[in-house]
Amino acid sequence: MKHQSIKRDWKARLHEVIYEADTPAGKIFDIALLVIILISVALVMMESVTELYVQYATEFYWAEWVITAIFTVEYILRIISIRRPKAYIFSFYGIVDLLSTLPSYLSFFMGGANLLFAIRALRLLRVFRVLKISRYIGESNRLMEALRNSRAKILVFLFAVVIICVITGTLMHLIEGETGGFSNIPLSIYWCIVTLTTVGFGDIAPVTPLGRFIASVLMITGYGIIAVPTGIVTSEFNKADGAHKNTNTQHCPVCNEQDHLNEAEFCHNCGNRLNAE
Amino acid sequence: MKHQSIKRDWKARLHEVIYEADTPAGKIFDIALLVIILISVALVMMESVTELYVQYATEFYWAEWVITAIFTVEYILRIISIRRPKAYIFSFYGIVDLLSTLPSYLSFFMGGANLLFAIRALRLLRVFRVLKISRYIGESNRLMEALRNSRAKILVFLFAVVIICVITGTLMHLIEGETGGFSNIPLSIYWCIVTLTTVGFGDIAPVTPLGRFIASVLMITGYGIIAVPTGIVTSEFNKADGAHKNTNTQHCPVCNEQDHLNEAEFCHNCGNRLNAE
Amino acid sequence: MKHQSIKRDWKARLHEVIYEADTPAGKIFDIALLVIILISVALVMMESVTELYVQYATEFYWAEWVITAIFTVEYILRIISIRRPKAYIFSFYGIVDLLSTLPSYLSFFMGGANLLFAIRALRLLRVFRVLKISRYIGESNRLMEALRNSRAKILVFLFAVVIICVITGTLMHLIEGETGGFSNIPLSIYWCIVTLTTVGFGDIAPVTPLGRFIASVLMITGYGIIAVPTGIVTSEFNKADGAHKNTNTQHCPVCNEQDHLNEAEFCHNCGNRLNAE
Amino acid sequence: MKHQSIKRDWKARLHEVIYEADTPAGKIFDIALLVIILISVALVMMESVTELYVQYATEFYWAEWVITAIFTVEYILRIISIRRPKAYIFSFYGIVDLLSTLPSYLSFFMGGANLLFAIRALRLLRVFRVLKISRYIGESNRLMEALRNSRAKILVFLFAVVIICVITGTLMHLIEGETGGFSNIPLSIYWCIVTLTTVGFGDIAPVTPLGRFIASVLMITGYGIIAVPTGIVTSEFNKADGAHKNTNTQHCPVCNEQDHLNEAEFCHNCGNRLNAE
Repeated sequence: MKHQSIKRDWKARLHEVIYEADTPAGKIFDIALLVIILISVALVMMESVTELYVQYATEFYWAEWVITAIFTVEYILRIISIRRPKAYIFSFYGIVDLLSTLPSYLSFFMGGANLLFAIRALRLLRVFRVLKISRYIGESNRLMEALRNSRAKILVFLFAVVIICVITGTLMHLIEGETGGFSNIPLSIYWCIVTLTTVGFGDIAPVTPLGRFIASVLMITGYGIIAVPTGIVTSEFNKADGAHKNTNTQHCPVCNEQDHLNEAEFCHNCGNRLNAE
Repeated sequence: MKHQSIKRDWKARLHEVIYEADTPAGKIFDIALLVIILISVALVMMESVTELYVQYATEFYWAEWVITAIFTVEYILRIISIRRPKAYIFSFYGIVDLLSTLPSYLSFFMGGANLLFAIRALRLLRVFRVLKISRYIGESNRLMEALRNSRAKILVFLFAVVIICVITGTLMHLIEGETGGFSNIPLSIYWCIVTLTTVGFGDIAPVTPLGRFIASVLMITGYGIIAVPTGIVTSEFNKADGAHKNTNTQHCPVCNEQDHLNEAEFCHNCGNRLNAE
Repeated sequence: MKHQSIKRDWKARLHEVIYEADTPAGKIFDIALLVIILISVALVMMESVTELYVQYATEFYWAEWVITAIFTVEYILRIISIRRPKAYIFSFYGIVDLLSTLPSYLSFFMGGANLLFAIRALRLLRVFRVLKISRYIGESNRLMEALRNSRAKILVFLFAVVIICVITGTLMHLIEGETGGFSNIPLSIYWCIVTLTTVGFGDIAPVTPLGRFIASVLMITGYGIIAVPTGIVTSEFNKADGAHKNTNTQHCPVCNEQDHLNEAEFCHNCGNRLNAE
Repeated sequence: MKHQSIKRDWKARLHEVIYEADTPAGKIFDIALLVIILISVALVMMESVTELYVQYATEFYWAEWVITAIFTVEYILRIISIRRPKAYIFSFYGIVDLLSTLPSYLSFFMGGANLLFAIRALRLLRVFRVLKISRYIGESNRLMEALRNSRAKILVFLFAVVIICVITGTLMHLIEGETGGFSNIPLSIYWCIVTLTTVGFGDIAPVTPLGRFIASVLMITGYGIIAVPTGIVTSEFNKADGAHKNTNTQHCPVCNEQDHLNEAEFCHNCGNRLNAE
């Protein structure tokens, strides 16, 4: 019985260190993990540079081993310390954590397949969990909320953008043909997206006068309608900010007047003292 | 007489399925149509890719036949089921529907002319009608209204943009001449639009120091004045949102007037005291 | 005496036609002038296209004669019909009008110098005067006012942009050297402006890793700080719109309450009838 | 004793001229300094143009000597005239001032090293100090404040942008491989930043259909999410503007409290009745 309780206690303490960030140990754990994640992503990037890989192949190999070992231990600890391991294993971060270690094992045994490479870059997603310690998560939530509220409007906008690109792309394919590189409709639509979003790579560019005229109209359209998502999001931010601007939620105990300024001590309607909050 | 009524009944039911989306049958019809439209547009796109066309020419031919047949039947049903067929035939969507089938017949009999290709892409416009079923149409209306309200300001802005491009384009033609590819004024104006809208293909670029200086001024101008349409549209969205901000939802108990200011104690329309909320 | 009065009368009528747009004759004059200006600018553009010039040299020559003659007559009439000709001649539009005719005469006598070409494009500026007839001038004034109010903020912003470009440009010149085309500092600054404003021609592009890293920082900076002019102008538009939103300036004759809704007939504070405005 | 006082007086007068801009002498000093800074930066730029350097090497040499001498004298005077020279020497502007002269001396004695070149461009930073004379500093402060307030939100946004670029960059490296120039992950991430920020150099561009599809999604994302920083900053500007919008300028006759709501009849601070305006 006592053994049980000690074991549970040990698990609870481990859970606090790994999943929470309130204790000093929890903070140190999170920061250490953050550093290891960033190092591992940097290694994945550097490994892809041929010159570096040729020179430091052995070092990359051993560094990968060490990081995979750390992540494996962490993954096992996470499963042990939580009450319902299944809930963790099949959660978004559980899968990301698994994908952070599995590809390395596979590549050790099967030889480094290219696709496994990409999956290792997903380790960067783990950064998001660690960042829960930071005060930025509140800001991030407010950003997400504003974006969520304007989702419907933004989808309508993006749909209109796609329609414009499909129709203009077909037109450009007919007008320019092979000469400017508009050799098929999907490629022309790709060019329209490049142009409307004002990216403009220049690998494909119209050469006929009519094609250039249509391109001009498309560019000015793209330049003008960028105002639409901006207007939507800005208005959403304003709404969120303006909801309770400067005034608080207290009611006057005498006349029940609302919307008092934050610094108000007396009701502006009847002159009676407001309750201290 | 009875036969007549049954026929009218049959027409009314058909009308409900085809033109409305309130009944289950109507919804299924709309979704099926949406899928066929998207497939037909995808086919038009894929047909334009030479490699695919060479390999699957027969398949494209038969798919086009089937889709054209479906659209033809649908077009005939639309004409039959409506009370005033002329109003439909000459409406925007009536013409789009006709253009969705006609080019196929023409190309079957005349050989696939290129222009007919483009017209078939207009089928995508039909998507807009089907989308009336979605809740996004309300959002889309509000977007359109905000754009309509700011139309005059945006036209003035676009006109200023065109003037800037014409004058700078002429200047660039004189300064750069043939060297940078600024071989005539319309081309230079095209380049100015590419630059001012921050697209920047790079197929034409200034090479003289003075030309580059003017290009810099033009780019900074373009970068700065994008604020103008954005400001216009955002302010329009804010107005739409703020229209009923300082007013509440209470109705006057005497004259039923709405939109009273939050601090109003008497109705601004008839002068009677408002109920305390 | 009578002769004098008739002459003055004739001048006044002419003045009304040329300078005002209230009478039918004035409107017709303005629209005709607008058409001629647009044609003349179109001709200047087409003349610069070598293929067109080679083929239609004679037609261009005569069209230019006719337009110059019309503009000359108009210019003389403008001087005759106004009371203080000097005020007109040295005004902005007076100089633009003179520059619309003079270059043609000079090129007839001296041979078509290139610079004269450009000056003829200034004819487009005349369009602005004619547009006074349109309702868009009001919108244009409000746009200009919003821009004027935010002038100081925008200048500070542009100054910061220039400083960033000069310092980053010097850095890029040192890092990239000749390889990427960053052969001197002014050119590197030009590239920085191209990049910061998100134009991105691609005629010059960094090739060293460090140069690409600095370019990335510069691009993200440019992408982020475009929010600043937009924020400035939008907030200015909001201020202009919000100044008298929905409420009018009438005071209640009894309790002197202000900020009544536009449709209010009774004071919302004391319930007494408001004066009709 | 008297000698001391005169010396202190002389120092105080010098301090006023150099550090303040209230007296005519101070203004003249600041404007002269501004002109010299701009000339010196222009010289640094022109020196980097090979053609100019070859032709005017001697002139550049002497101009550099003169400017360095002036800056040296100014630097010494700044140290002499201030009470606590250490505070100045180790301040931001103190270091910038030192870096404006030191590199020239080093290059005179050691031969013109390239890095010294760059440091001389930092002279431009001195412009900011001189600009304290202008009224723009107020605007600049308000801009900085709005940016500071939205710092947390903007950092979250930029962090999200970097994550998107890292993951998309890894994907593009795998999909495109060497063909389109996506030869390693850091380079692919660089390309993603170029694309997401809508710069689009075009030196690297996807060539496979899947790569182009992902590029399209990335571009539309970049085009859409530019609304986020804009919304943040605009809403911040609005807040700054709106802080005192619903409040009026009346002072409480008893406690002199300000910022009363427009509809307030009693002071919210002391509860006494406000004067009717």
